[in-house]
Amino acid sequence: MRFFEDIKIGQRREVGSFTFTADAIKHFAAQFDPQRFHLDEEEGRKSLFGGLAASGWHVGSVCMKLMVADGKRQAKEAHTRGEKVAVWGPSPGFRELRWIKPVLAGDTVSFSSEVETLRTSDTRPEWGIVQVRNTGTNQRGEVVFSFLATAFVPRRDPAA
Amino acid sequence: MRFFEDIKIGQRREVGSFTFTADAIKHFAAQFDPQRFHLDEEEGRKSLFGGLAASGWHVGSVCMKLMVADGKRQAKEAHTRGEKVAVWGPSPGFRELRWIKPVLAGDTVSFSSEVETLRTSDTRPEWGIVQVRNTGTNQRGEVVFSFLATAFVPRRDPAA
Repeated sequence: MRFFEDIKIGQRREVGSFTFTADAIKHFAAQFDPQRFHLDEEEGRKSLFGGLAASGWHVGSVCMKLMVADGKRQAKEAHTRGEKVAVWGPSPGFRELRWIKPVLAGDTVSFSSEVETLRTSDTRPEWGIVQVRNTGTNQRGEVVFSFLATAFVPRRDPAA
Repeated sequence: MRFFEDIKIGQRREVGSFTFTADAIKHFAAQFDPQRFHLDEEEGRKSLFGGLAASGWHVGSVCMKLMVADGKRQAKEAHTRGEKVAVWGPSPGFRELRWIKPVLAGDTVSFSSEVETLRTSDTRPEWGIVQVRNTGTNQRGEVVFSFLATAFVPRRDPAA
């Protein structure tokens, strides 16, 4: 994880990818989104999705999982280099969460993030505020998922 | 599930409630959001959340689960009354997804939905488009979660 001062607008990072198997789709759906087109291939084929489709919350949760893993990897690398590791604050929310195309059984979605805005906070000088556009792209190069996340990122030198 | 013509702006519905136990919080986090403040009470207490906190994606997924269950209940009731049951289309996305306050272990969140906008589509006369504000409120009456969902809802009489 980087400090606010290390982050530049336009910086892009590949976060990781995940193949949505039929089993994974049904397992999530049974727990959290038991709609027929998320649970059964034939029902999926008959739906507007045209196949067994992952729940949108599943796509988002997998993206989160990969972002956390990527953050841990970055922290470990920074630690190995003897650098101080930034601990990011929680996200107050997302804007423009979009499920642009269905994610069907067998699809592999690659997630990436790109920095869109950076600002400091007068009331919280120890934090910077970063907006990052996270997107998921399938194996055909189609963007299937997108959201704009806001995060609090610690400043290396709040007094600066 | 209702048809477009049955829906009025301002209609509100209690969707259901869920108690986020420590076990449920950790089980979701281990699968999809393994950050320390979602996995361990002591780490949660030391974090900005002030306690073991549910992943935002967990809160959203539970809301989805309750909405699906509520939709099935409504469909069953309509079927029992001998009414035609509307099958809603998929949601193309959400706007303004906000995690307003932490959801901590032991909190009970009650979800409700309220219709904000209604419109018809010239290009898809068989569907109406509904925007619904979904909110989660904890046992102290504090709104903790909110998003504005867009849904395609079938029209009872597209020719009208």
